[in-house]
Amino acid sequence: ASDQTRREATAAMADKVKPLGSLGLLEEVAIRIAALRGRVDLPDPTPAVVVCAADHGIAREGVSAFPQAVTGLMLTAFGTGGAAVAVLSRAAGARLVVADLGVIDPPVVPGVLDLSIRPGTANSVDGPAMTPAEATAALRQGIDLAHELVDDGVDLIALGEMGIGNTTTASALTAALLGLDAAATCGRGTGLDDEQVAHKVSVVDQVLARHASVSDDPLAVLAAMGGLEVAALAGVVLGAAERKVPVLVDGFITGAAALVAARLAPACTDAMVAAHLSPEPGHALQLAALGLRPLLDLQMRLGEGSGAALAINVVRSSIAVLTEMATFASLGLDQTSPVT
Amino acid sequence: ASDQTRREATAAMADKVKPLGSLGLLEEVAIRIAALRGRVDLPDPTPAVVVCAADHGIAREGVSAFPQAVTGLMLTAFGTGGAAVAVLSRAAGARLVVADLGVIDPPVVPGVLDLSIRPGTANSVDGPAMTPAEATAALRQGIDLAHELVDDGVDLIALGEMGIGNTTTASALTAALLGLDAAATCGRGTGLDDEQVAHKVSVVDQVLARHASVSDDPLAVLAAMGGLEVAALAGVVLGAAERKVPVLVDGFITGAAALVAARLAPACTDAMVAAHLSPEPGHALQLAALGLRPLLDLQMRLGEGSGAALAINVVRSSIAVLTEMATFASLGLDQTSPVT
Repeated sequence: ASDQTRREATAAMADKVKPLGSLGLLEEVAIRIAALRGRVDLPDPTPAVVVCAADHGIAREGVSAFPQAVTGLMLTAFGTGGAAVAVLSRAAGARLVVADLGVIDPPVVPGVLDLSIRPGTANSVDGPAMTPAEATAALRQGIDLAHELVDDGVDLIALGEMGIGNTTTASALTAALLGLDAAATCGRGTGLDDEQVAHKVSVVDQVLARHASVSDDPLAVLAAMGGLEVAALAGVVLGAAERKVPVLVDGFITGAAALVAARLAPACTDAMVAAHLSPEPGHALQLAALGLRPLLDLQMRLGEGSGAALAINVVRSSIAVLTEMATFASLGLDQTSPVT
Repeated sequence: ASDQTRREATAAMADKVKPLGSLGLLEEVAIRIAALRGRVDLPDPTPAVVVCAADHGIAREGVSAFPQAVTGLMLTAFGTGGAAVAVLSRAAGARLVVADLGVIDPPVVPGVLDLSIRPGTANSVDGPAMTPAEATAALRQGIDLAHELVDDGVDLIALGEMGIGNTTTASALTAALLGLDAAATCGRGTGLDDEQVAHKVSVVDQVLARHASVSDDPLAVLAAMGGLEVAALAGVVLGAAERKVPVLVDGFITGAAALVAARLAPACTDAMVAAHLSPEPGHALQLAALGLRPLLDLQMRLGEGSGAALAINVVRSSIAVLTEMATFASLGLDQTSPVT
């Protein structure tokens, strides 16, 4: 990000006809994006919501409230426009891009990109979820997808995901990358009760013990624990950051992808905007580690990219404030010496 | 609000292809609006942002960081589209309606409605801010304006305001109506330091002492303390609620108007949606008294209706979720017995 542009954007925001700082996070996010893009005269964003989907071998441990077949069924709901993220993308005027990185037995749905690396990961309790080469290939798919979108005029990417069992994968990744206990990163996912959460903690403990030797290398951790969509999303972050395009991080699973990306290339956190705060306990820990402050807190815990899609209009509004608001000077006022 | 429709909307939301309750407040707000409107098949909303402006005699006590002339200058910024609320209304696709209820020496700005009752209120430290007849007339202007907008197809009204000194008026109203000390309801407004806040508390204490005898009658409190725009905004709430149209309450000043309206007609709280939480300390107290939970918390403290305008897209998205999302049944799934 450009410090020079950050200073220019901060000065421009201070000149706007309002008390200093009175638009709160709306000011911060516009300044952050201006610094990333290297320009204060930002255009109205052209957003895309990128949903990466894949299956997880760890789902066989009984860690989700839904059967694994739901991953594929939800691809249909994304493709036909009835899923939450599809509805919220339309409401935000955003293109929805759905990519299959490794769904077992995927339905034939028009418009879903086939970027499949393998039909689901292996169970990370028993061994590596995938090989390092597969993790790298999934990451590469994400990077390429981000580049294609940016080449096509997209300048704001909201991250989304689908994969039954992927909160467990995200819990393991987050615990491994942040050096935390499983209990700190396991939540109710799509609706577990206390006993089921305890079971999830024990499963994540097994994953952490099984792969304790790889915890210093983010790519090795990713390959060991999965998932394919998490790897691709980390790639989307890297590819977007490389092109200086901001990414809206959604909830706990895209947060795990953002953590992986940040470990691979620390400067890419400059491109991240936290869309919302999920009630998943590990999400706030991820955001703190990434130095991000969430825009929204609507107690949303669906995933899919629903929170990121909803935050698009907040980002769009923040940019409008920076580029369209009048200045004190234009109204003949001097904001540096308000009279009491 | 219709309990029958609330049950129907709740059931419809439960059938959507997502874990129960996983869209949090987004589900609650759509159900609330369906119950108010008496229908589940809500159309995409046609929003308007209504900004009422007026001057306050209490500004002469030195309670604002800005001179009183700023009220009129901001009318120009609203009319010419450069004010924050104008920018955010455009970003939300909402019509902006600006009404002058009593600005001293208002500029001639095309598009600003002249609903002026008198050129600013009197100083409520010295006596009543206005007569009961003037308060009723301002309230009536607001009711009529809401009816006109609804007749013109508007079905979502965001409340906004402008008036130098009006956080002090709102502090006095809130303290009087909720039986609180001035210290609990006085904040930094547009940017006061600790000493200036202490002065504001002493001014509000004087207002409360001066008008202690009227505190049981909301209309008398309103006339005694002002302001003209607060009265009109209370009228907008009453008029919208009468027509079963939801109103987005913005920050502390529109919150005071909502409190007045709720005291005059308690059922009108059914029509209220709290757009955001302001850092003004009295705002959370107002929302608690009204039983409202804010949608956004972006540390916005500008007023004007900026938070309410920003929340329009959240409401629009919540309605899209209710009306456009697919059901479990449509995907061949049974959500009542998720398999682990």
